[in-house]
Amino acid sequence: MVLYIIGLGLGDEKDITIKGKEIIEKSDIVYLESYTSILFISKEDLEKFYKKKIYEVDRNFAEENCEEILSEAKNKIVSFLVVGDPLCATTHHDIILRAKKENIKVHIIHNTSIISAIGESGMQLYNFGQIVSIPFFEKDYKPTSFYDKIKINLYNNFHTLCLLDIKVKERTIENIMKNRNIYEPPRYMTINEAIEQLLYCEDIHKKNVITQNTMGIAIVRIGSNNQQIISGNLLTLKSLNYNKPLHSLIICAPKLHDIEKEYFDIHLHKN
Amino acid sequence: MVLYIIGLGLGDEKDITIKGKEIIEKSDIVYLESYTSILFISKEDLEKFYKKKIYEVDRNFAEENCEEILSEAKNKIVSFLVVGDPLCATTHHDIILRAKKENIKVHIIHNTSIISAIGESGMQLYNFGQIVSIPFFEKDYKPTSFYDKIKINLYNNFHTLCLLDIKVKERTIENIMKNRNIYEPPRYMTINEAIEQLLYCEDIHKKNVITQNTMGIAIVRIGSNNQQIISGNLLTLKSLNYNKPLHSLIICAPKLHDIEKEYFDIHLHKN
Repeated sequence: MVLYIIGLGLGDEKDITIKGKEIIEKSDIVYLESYTSILFISKEDLEKFYKKKIYEVDRNFAEENCEEILSEAKNKIVSFLVVGDPLCATTHHDIILRAKKENIKVHIIHNTSIISAIGESGMQLYNFGQIVSIPFFEKDYKPTSFYDKIKINLYNNFHTLCLLDIKVKERTIENIMKNRNIYEPPRYMTINEAIEQLLYCEDIHKKNVITQNTMGIAIVRIGSNNQQIISGNLLTLKSLNYNKPLHSLIICAPKLHDIEKEYFDIHLHKN
Repeated sequence: MVLYIIGLGLGDEKDITIKGKEIIEKSDIVYLESYTSILFISKEDLEKFYKKKIYEVDRNFAEENCEEILSEAKNKIVSFLVVGDPLCATTHHDIILRAKKENIKVHIIHNTSIISAIGESGMQLYNFGQIVSIPFFEKDYKPTSFYDKIKINLYNNFHTLCLLDIKVKERTIENIMKNRNIYEPPRYMTINEAIEQLLYCEDIHKKNVITQNTMGIAIVRIGSNNQQIISGNLLTLKSLNYNKPLHSLIICAPKLHDIEKEYFDIHLHKN
């Protein structure tokens, strides 16, 4: 039959499109992926509103057991729900490719994602360069490619949207080695942690990219009813207390346009 | 009271979010802006589905008479509908700023936009550089800054999303001089025209950016039920007949990642 990949948007159960909700209602089975972003409401609230049983899938299931979903989609209407827009995270391209190879029809129901919603910061989407991901530093693993990407963006006077790491259902190396299905508690990188890691990179690599005076915009739970958009230099942004994750961070281009300046000032943190 | 700026998404009346539709239903007055993108259905269909009278506003109205909308928003619930996401076009930032200065509450209801929907091409959103706009060349006015921006993107191995010009309710210079409100028919740049302009830039500036062999992806009416996604070199893409606008064009990064390559091949134009 068909596999629908449906974006839920960023806030709550009412951020789905009417088209998306109608498809869920006629679906034989509904999955919800919950490992690339955070849903700001419970699965139970979704189920109540969509009047459907929803099966939550984690990364293991979607990546390793995706054959199961695909074989169901051969003779059923299957919906796969994704927070935000379905195709902003790279992981979902894979399941679509596999479906296409098996001649399963795939329909995408788009929705907003952080990539368009950050327009609300006032920074023009035309002035963003490459998006970067900032991964959690581990004791022996501190990849810093995001630092070099931000350097290129700043050099070209682009803003950088920094997406901050999410670790859901991860296992310690010890537990992986011992084949134990014991999962660590979920971790969502905060803006404070991200700025600390950025300043660490500067400390180590000294390429003159990031300082405490670099201008940024803290983006918290965008699209939800307790979103925060706060601008300031990184020293200030590092010191603030924010609402719970999801957090993202914009590193601003060195020169802002007039309208961007006005927005930056509107969002400026005041003591 | 409050000014709601509501994204309609990209396809038809059912691409609005449930939240957006509920707000329209409780609004005292509803405007629709129709100059930064194309709606693929009629205003009348929207009115029927949303059960509300909708007032269409053109660029002149929204930019020059925006005070009228704002003064209504002081004591009424006003909805301002925008195709796609409200904040992807730069023009809407202005009305929001003005509202904030007058202490009018503004709420944004986000939706998908071409910027996230192009994920459907298979090109990873992480690998895009700056977005460019390609304006219609006029006889004596051929700005080519988009050409230099694409050069930077290609140099950094980024894809470029090219948004193609839309001219709605434009007047000739003669009609402006004579103060005549006679409007030209709307014009929407096609992918074919865009590629011609790109090749023209190369011809004139010879910076070795674009050739007929440069790889691109034609994006036609994305999010609608007659969308097209066709990949190939620019010579091929220039020669094809597409569905009606809206058209956009991706200029691909020189080196594609494995999954991107697979998608590029799936979308490849076959003779």
